[in-house]
Amino acid sequence: MAVPSPRTPVVAMVGGGQLARMTHQAAIALGQNLRVLVTAADEPAAQVSPNVVIGSHTELDDLRRVASGATVLTFDHEHVPTELLEKLVAEGVNVAPPPQALVHAQDKLVMRQRLEALGAPVPRYTGIDNLDRLGELDAFAAGLDAPGDAGLVVKAVRGGYDGRGVRMARDLAQARDIAREYLEGGVPVLVEERVQLRRELSALVARSPFGQGAAWPVVETVQRDGICVQVIAPAPDLPDDVAAAAQQLALRLAAELGVVGVLAVELFETVEGGLLINELAMRPHNSGHWTMDGSKTSQFEQHLRAVLDYPLGDTEVTVPVTVMANVLGAAEAPAMSVDERLHHLFARMPDARVHLYGKAERPGRKVGHINFLGADPAALPQLRERAELAAHWLAHGQWADGWDAHS
Amino acid sequence: MAVPSPRTPVVAMVGGGQLARMTHQAAIALGQNLRVLVTAADEPAAQVSPNVVIGSHTELDDLRRVASGATVLTFDHEHVPTELLEKLVAEGVNVAPPPQALVHAQDKLVMRQRLEALGAPVPRYTGIDNLDRLGELDAFAAGLDAPGDAGLVVKAVRGGYDGRGVRMARDLAQARDIAREYLEGGVPVLVEERVQLRRELSALVARSPFGQGAAWPVVETVQRDGICVQVIAPAPDLPDDVAAAAQQLALRLAAELGVVGVLAVELFETVEGGLLINELAMRPHNSGHWTMDGSKTSQFEQHLRAVLDYPLGDTEVTVPVTVMANVLGAAEAPAMSVDERLHHLFARMPDARVHLYGKAERPGRKVGHINFLGADPAALPQLRERAELAAHWLAHGQWADGWDAHS
Repeated sequence: MAVPSPRTPVVAMVGGGQLARMTHQAAIALGQNLRVLVTAADEPAAQVSPNVVIGSHTELDDLRRVASGATVLTFDHEHVPTELLEKLVAEGVNVAPPPQALVHAQDKLVMRQRLEALGAPVPRYTGIDNLDRLGELDAFAAGLDAPGDAGLVVKAVRGGYDGRGVRMARDLAQARDIAREYLEGGVPVLVEERVQLRRELSALVARSPFGQGAAWPVVETVQRDGICVQVIAPAPDLPDDVAAAAQQLALRLAAELGVVGVLAVELFETVEGGLLINELAMRPHNSGHWTMDGSKTSQFEQHLRAVLDYPLGDTEVTVPVTVMANVLGAAEAPAMSVDERLHHLFARMPDARVHLYGKAERPGRKVGHINFLGADPAALPQLRERAELAAHWLAHGQWADGWDAHS
Repeated sequence: MAVPSPRTPVVAMVGGGQLARMTHQAAIALGQNLRVLVTAADEPAAQVSPNVVIGSHTELDDLRRVASGATVLTFDHEHVPTELLEKLVAEGVNVAPPPQALVHAQDKLVMRQRLEALGAPVPRYTGIDNLDRLGELDAFAAGLDAPGDAGLVVKAVRGGYDGRGVRMARDLAQARDIAREYLEGGVPVLVEERVQLRRELSALVARSPFGQGAAWPVVETVQRDGICVQVIAPAPDLPDDVAAAAQQLALRLAAELGVVGVLAVELFETVEGGLLINELAMRPHNSGHWTMDGSKTSQFEQHLRAVLDYPLGDTEVTVPVTVMANVLGAAEAPAMSVDERLHHLFARMPDARVHLYGKAERPGRKVGHINFLGADPAALPQLRERAELAAHWLAHGQWADGWDAHS
């Protein structure tokens, strides 16, 4: 009567960073097998998984190796050239999200043009692909309401992440200088108006090949120096109609672009209360790390369910409010080991939900995150303060409120 | 300024079953490294971890290999002979729980005698270690209130789990036959009164070497044929004073016995409302699987925190009620693969929190569990029914309520 060991799906993931590491945790629960393509054996996912292929995401043969026999090939980052993915698709590999969708998370200009064509709200922008066209920047700026005062944003069309490849210009002259610098390096740019914003939001959804969509509550992402430092779920005081509009927009884009897996739509909430789309990511995303503790289905499990075309999980919150704080490597090496810092953190805050990535600590690098669950939305300021203190402590080995000095 | 990759603790665990598998998930989040000793490379933990030692838990050299360089040695089961653990301790290995505590989870007679000496409530019992003493059974039975009607329970003193080694006797004559059978095989027995019970409970706590203790809410464990099929957290309608007494009892025993790690105290709630201790387990326990989704700290993370002498985590619930159902292998092989069954389960119940162990399905074997989170304690009957349906479906590929026949 014994049934043979079940044949469980193999999911191949390109990249071995923290997103792959946390996807492995989710795959364990579902009885699945995650195989990762990493460039080195000490990457976060390779440290904790037995199913590792070492190779490059820009080498077709390495991509073929990790995809061989897998049910689906998916991503921990968006840096795989689409021409290689097209070849894999032609060879019969099930790529999720497919390259024609993924390109919108790789190329900011393609993304903006497509969103515009779909009638989705985006900041005013212009794309400049070579030095000869640099003069078009002046015409673009002249068409804005306040080109001098509000400043401009210059972005590399491809290759940016975590705020890299995005630079703020205080005026047209500086924007021209930055754009020239990129273009002289052969990097096309996108220049856009600097939006007067109230805050940044993120609408996280998942979509399966069958076409099912699921949306988590819209969250607020708090940025510092272009890097997300905190996420508040759900976004506080967001009017219901705006939240619903953001969710519907994200679900519509997932369907129109043919996304399979998790899609993060990073949004600006303008001072007038409107929404503009800033960026797209087609993979589990920093703005969804709160779901590991605060939602009935984590984004990592949902991504697996989506790419395997399983029915999607319940995106309801488990608690009224969750705050996620990123742990960003300190500029100065802390005196204490991370193990000691963790020990002290737990002594002060036994409810901190810690997720470490096994990465070497370098200044500004995301080495972990901490979730705090709150039963009372009115206590959000205290929850945020604790999250901030916890993340700072874990990165620096210093309590920013001087707590250790008194104890 | 770059800080070298952090030296994170290595935790060695003897055994590669589902408890080690789920402890690995928790270790990933804490940036730790779990090394498991398994007898075969396809065991549940070995499937998902890169840090595997293949060997036997009864071979000193294999135990030495897994413990080598580890911060602590702990357990996924209690079958390691204490004399081997004593040798490891003498060699400087940090064993948690230490052998002098662990023996109380290995030997039912030692456990009962110690609990009695501590004044802890246990069923009336007698220990019989050889055939010559079989006659003492009659004297023991004669001293009970209703030796004929209520029946007796005969237990092998060592080696039982999941109801094995525990047999019910309807009367004294049958008890004598069962005891003789064990004793002829060289297995000492413990014979006890069959308690008239209302239900079974479990008080789960953790204790660190520093002496910190933490207790989760007391849960109800629902048994069928001696195997736990469902856990309800917290135990419904348990008077506050009884719940507090059970937690305090478990914390006191953890301290008195010198437990390090998680301790499960399995309890009988008698028809009169009193508590009697049935069994002890010193490791993450089936009655704590609900904590993976229903508590701020899972028992697996807590076990790691305890054996590493970290401050313990918050044991508060995240939702008012959680129901855990075990998935027990069916007698007949289901027509659908487990992958297909999971797909259908998610279609009907998008909020099911599934945890699969990667084990071959054999009749009655625990191959996974499913948690359901409830916001409304009044809806517990429906939550329990859904959990029962889900677990039965995942094991059998049949909806016990005929749902598939109608759809």
